[in-house]
Amino acid sequence: MKIDPKHPRALSLQNREKLVWGVKNGITSPAGLIAFGRGEAFDYLLSERTQPFAKKAIRAAAAYLLLAKKPILSINGNSAILCANEFIRIAKLLNCRIEVNLFHYSQSRVKKIESLLKSLDPERVLISKKEEKIILPEIASKRAIVMREGIGNSDCVLVPLEDGDRCQALVKMQKKVIAIDLNPLSRTAKYAQVTIVDNICRCLPLLFREIKDLKNKDKRFLEEIINSYDNNKIINEALRAICAKLDDTL
Amino acid sequence: MKIDPKHPRALSLQNREKLVWGVKNGITSPAGLIAFGRGEAFDYLLSERTQPFAKKAIRAAAAYLLLAKKPILSINGNSAILCANEFIRIAKLLNCRIEVNLFHYSQSRVKKIESLLKSLDPERVLISKKEEKIILPEIASKRAIVMREGIGNSDCVLVPLEDGDRCQALVKMQKKVIAIDLNPLSRTAKYAQVTIVDNICRCLPLLFREIKDLKNKDKRFLEEIINSYDNNKIINEALRAICAKLDDTL
Repeated sequence: MKIDPKHPRALSLQNREKLVWGVKNGITSPAGLIAFGRGEAFDYLLSERTQPFAKKAIRAAAAYLLLAKKPILSINGNSAILCANEFIRIAKLLNCRIEVNLFHYSQSRVKKIESLLKSLDPERVLISKKEEKIILPEIASKRAIVMREGIGNSDCVLVPLEDGDRCQALVKMQKKVIAIDLNPLSRTAKYAQVTIVDNICRCLPLLFREIKDLKNKDKRFLEEIINSYDNNKIINEALRAICAKLDDTL
Repeated sequence: MKIDPKHPRALSLQNREKLVWGVKNGITSPAGLIAFGRGEAFDYLLSERTQPFAKKAIRAAAAYLLLAKKPILSINGNSAILCANEFIRIAKLLNCRIEVNLFHYSQSRVKKIESLLKSLDPERVLISKKEEKIILPEIASKRAIVMREGIGNSDCVLVPLEDGDRCQALVKMQKKVIAIDLNPLSRTAKYAQVTIVDNICRCLPLLFREIKDLKNKDKRFLEEIINSYDNNKIINEALRAICAKLDDTL
């Protein structure tokens, strides 16, 4: 379908087309389309723009990632289709790796996403190897399969479009978890240290810029950002923004 | 994927599986999965239950359908996959037909949905014929393609999971439009005479029962239901219910 770039919801429509293409080519799972739709609804309720609470979360996320000894970016089918390039740019800036991690797991899908990332930058993606795989405890889905040298040994994980189970398990393992989730009511939103309630396509470029801005700041400066950050407050601001949008319509 | 029937969200998970199956078999469009996801998000915000405002809308819908001279049920890929049987039961009760009408139109999909309905009841579905097709004005999508003997000449249309464009056009053509839409902010919700803000799988059995209850009432009784019904009020109640849910979390 041809999308008029002047359409008020062009970004959303273009993303839909990308995902449908992703399903046809075995990169996105069909259930990923449903998850995308849920996100669309929340994005609509957030007026489809990056709100102040998301900007504060992005700043805290940048500080966490810069302070981490071994940060890693987790990527799934939807995030790869929607913004693989942004992942590569952020991974380069942080000098870290990207690991494919799927809820609707299949080896073929993992390989396809790894190839997609490799075609953009051969260095940044952690290619899965059987002997490197470990199973994280307390995760019911195949999200539990991770690589020792990747999420396994990491101390800070960026988890966009995550499921609640794994987010909770990663936090329990003492990892710092930065989630990108449009639903401020989700378990992921609740359990992550930092929850960016925003559309992944809008917030990743902002996260990149924030990391760049903070990269040369000293440790104390970054710690101060983290110490003054309150994720519960951010979630509440997101909930209030949705209410305000609904109130406007009343 | 096997779904535990005791899972708190079993209905939602079963429906997801049905839709994914529908895509694989060419009945549902991939974009239908995204639309389903949007609905899921709103259903979640409505606590996944039929709320009092939806019950009032269902009653008004039953009255409109019973008062109509030529009611018709419009069905698309998602609604066919999720509740074809309920459409048949309601069409039988009203002695009316079901017409397939698709946003992501393809002849093959129309045929497949017609076959699915025919296999359940050979009488109820209006089989599309080239010479019967007309194009409704002011509808940009292929939703404009309808049959003269179906939606074309109808005076009351049940449009579940509708797009705003067509809803508006049908209302403009003086038809009574009953929409089922989980998003109380949508154009469909706004323009329909009656908007049932509820999950289609929950509200169709209730609509069936309501039609059955009202079937033997006289015309004045039904008119009284319609006259005392205020769709704007219903929409506002739906918006307030979502706000209340968000407030609970704050």
